[in-house]
Amino acid sequence: MLATRGFAAHDATSSLVPFSFSRRAVGARDVLIQVRFCGICHSDLHQVRNEWGESIYPMVPGHEITGTVVQVGAEVRSFAPGDTVGVGCFVDTCRTCGACRAGDEQYCEDHVAWTYNGYERDRRTPTYGGYSDQIVVDERYVLRIPAGLPLDRAAPLLCAGITTYSPLKHWQVGPGHRLAVVGLGGLGHMAVKLGAALGAHVTVLSRSEKKRTDALRLGAAEYVPTGGDYSKLARSFDFVLDTVSAPHPIDPLMETLKTNGTLILVGAPEKPLSVKAMSLILRRRRLAGSLIGGIRETQDMLNFCAAHGAAADIEVIPIQDVNAAYERLLLGDVRYRFVIDLASLR
Amino acid sequence: MLATRGFAAHDATSSLVPFSFSRRAVGARDVLIQVRFCGICHSDLHQVRNEWGESIYPMVPGHEITGTVVQVGAEVRSFAPGDTVGVGCFVDTCRTCGACRAGDEQYCEDHVAWTYNGYERDRRTPTYGGYSDQIVVDERYVLRIPAGLPLDRAAPLLCAGITTYSPLKHWQVGPGHRLAVVGLGGLGHMAVKLGAALGAHVTVLSRSEKKRTDALRLGAAEYVPTGGDYSKLARSFDFVLDTVSAPHPIDPLMETLKTNGTLILVGAPEKPLSVKAMSLILRRRRLAGSLIGGIRETQDMLNFCAAHGAAADIEVIPIQDVNAAYERLLLGDVRYRFVIDLASLR
Repeated sequence: MLATRGFAAHDATSSLVPFSFSRRAVGARDVLIQVRFCGICHSDLHQVRNEWGESIYPMVPGHEITGTVVQVGAEVRSFAPGDTVGVGCFVDTCRTCGACRAGDEQYCEDHVAWTYNGYERDRRTPTYGGYSDQIVVDERYVLRIPAGLPLDRAAPLLCAGITTYSPLKHWQVGPGHRLAVVGLGGLGHMAVKLGAALGAHVTVLSRSEKKRTDALRLGAAEYVPTGGDYSKLARSFDFVLDTVSAPHPIDPLMETLKTNGTLILVGAPEKPLSVKAMSLILRRRRLAGSLIGGIRETQDMLNFCAAHGAAADIEVIPIQDVNAAYERLLLGDVRYRFVIDLASLR
Repeated sequence: MLATRGFAAHDATSSLVPFSFSRRAVGARDVLIQVRFCGICHSDLHQVRNEWGESIYPMVPGHEITGTVVQVGAEVRSFAPGDTVGVGCFVDTCRTCGACRAGDEQYCEDHVAWTYNGYERDRRTPTYGGYSDQIVVDERYVLRIPAGLPLDRAAPLLCAGITTYSPLKHWQVGPGHRLAVVGLGGLGHMAVKLGAALGAHVTVLSRSEKKRTDALRLGAAEYVPTGGDYSKLARSFDFVLDTVSAPHPIDPLMETLKTNGTLILVGAPEKPLSVKAMSLILRRRRLAGSLIGGIRETQDMLNFCAAHGAAADIEVIPIQDVNAAYERLLLGDVRYRFVIDLASLR
C-alpha cells in the first residue's frame, strides 16, 4: 500500500482538512502518477456538501488531474516514468458492455468507478481523487497530456473540456452551425473555445454586459446580453449548449432554436425542468443531455486542444486555499477555473 | 365561388350543425375535390371547443380528407378528374423558405395555411376543412391515394399516419431497433403498424391488459401492461414514440430508454412536461417532438402504406353522428379512428 496525503471532507458541513490515506500498490497494469495539478469542479462542491445525497466520507475530491508518471506495472504498455498524463472523472468501468466497447465508458451499463466519491470495480473500495499527492490508475483510464499543453491549464480539460467537447463532436457541431453557449463559467468558457475551434459561429448568451470582453476574447463571434429576454433570438441557433447548473427556464432557450435544433444540457439543475411539448413538436426540436466523454474521446479532445491552443483559463491556488476557493466558486468569482497546485501539499 | 355544404361549430360550446359556405373558384393550379371521407382527429375536438385558445368560428373541421378529383385548373399537371386524392393538415405554405424547399412544409418559417381553423396565404381568408362535400386545393398540396388503399381507411393516414411515419423515418427507426409505442389510439395504432412495417421490434406499453390482443394483431412483437410502473423496462428501448395527449409523467418513460435513446412526443399535452436533467444527461438521452410531415414525405407514407397494407382501422359514421362521435372520442371509445362518410351529407 502507498501512503498518500491529501485534503478531505469528513462530513457535509465541515471544511476540507489534511488527510492521510493509503492507495493500492502498483499492479501489473497500473500507473502511479505524481499529481501536479487538480482543477476544482463545481461538482466537487456539490459532493463535498452532499447536495446530491450520495456522498461517501471521508471524501478526497478532484477529477481534473494532471501529473507525471512515477512508476508503471510490469504489463503497462502505453506509459513510462516521466510521461505527463491526466486522469478524468472515472478510473474504471466494466470494459465489456456495449458502451465500454464503443468507447463510451462514461455510460457503462454495469459500473463506473468514479475517480472520487465512488467505488472501485470491487464495489467496496472507496476511490479518492486528485486533491492528493499521488494516484494509482489502470493504464486503460490514463490520458496522455500532449506536449504544448501546460499541465496546470490542461487539468480542467479532464472534466470541463471533455464535458463540452463530447456533445459538440457527438452532434457534429462545426462550420455552418450557429451555436449558443449559455453560462460562461468553467464549462461555458471551454464550450466557447472548443465551439469556435470546431468552426461553429458561437454566440454567448449572458444576463448582463459584464462578460462581453471575455466572451469575445475566448472566441465568441457574438455576445448577447439577454436580461432574461430571449424573444429577439427566436429560431436563431442550430444548437444551444446549456452549461448552467442552477435551475433556469428552458422554454425561452428552446425558442431560440431553429427547426431541428438541439438544446444540450451539460449542467445539471437539481430540480426537474419544465418544458412545453409544443416547444419541441412545432419545430421538431430536441432536448438532450450529455455526460463527460469516453477515454478515446478524451484523448482526442486533449490532442485537439493542444493543436488549437485551447487550454483552460485558470487561477492557480495552493491546496490550503481550497475552502476559500469554494466560497468564491459559489459567488461565480473565478475566471474560469481554480486549479490546485499540489506542490503546496509537499 | 363554389357553394359548399358542411358541418360547422359556431362557438366553443355548441354542437356541430349543418353549414353552407363558399369556396373559391378553381384557379389555374387548383384541384377541386369531391370529399368522400374525412377522419375525426382528436385535434378537431380540441379546436372545436377552443381548448387551444386559437379557434376561428364558424369552424368546419377535418384534415384527414380523401376524395375524387372533379375538376382541375388549366395549369395543373399532376392530377386529372377521376383521380383519388387526399388532403392533410395544411393546404398552403410560403413555398420559398428553407423548410418548404427541404420538403418540411409543416415547419414553414413564414405561414402555414392549416386545412381548417387557419388562414390562406393572404392571411385573411379563413380555411374550412373536410367535414364538407368539396374542397379546392392547390395541386402542390394534394396527395395521390395509391390504388389498393381504400379511401375510407386511407383518410386517417393524412394526419395519424404521417404524424407517426415522419418521426420514424426522420430518426431512421428500423431493423435492430426496439421501439416502444405509448398510447394505443388513433396515432398509436398507426405507430405500431408503421413501426412493424419498417422492421422495428415494437412493444406497446399500456396501463392494463385490455388492449393486448389488438396490439399484437396490429403488429406489436410485445405488449407490456405497466400499471404505470416502468421499473422493469429500464434501458430497454432505442425509441419511445409517445402518442398520449393527456398530461402524463415523462421521467419514467425516459428511464425505459437505452443510452442514446430518443423519446419522441407526437401527442401534445397542454401542461408543461416535467423532466429531470439527469434522465437526459446520465444516458445521453433525447426528448424530441415531431409535427405531422411534409408533402413529399406524406406521399411516401401513402405509397408505403399501400405497399404494406397498413391502412387505418376505422369506424365509419354518417356526418349526422359527429357530435356523438366526439363524446365517444372523449371516452377513448373508438378503434381506432372515426371516419365520416360524406355521402351522408348529400
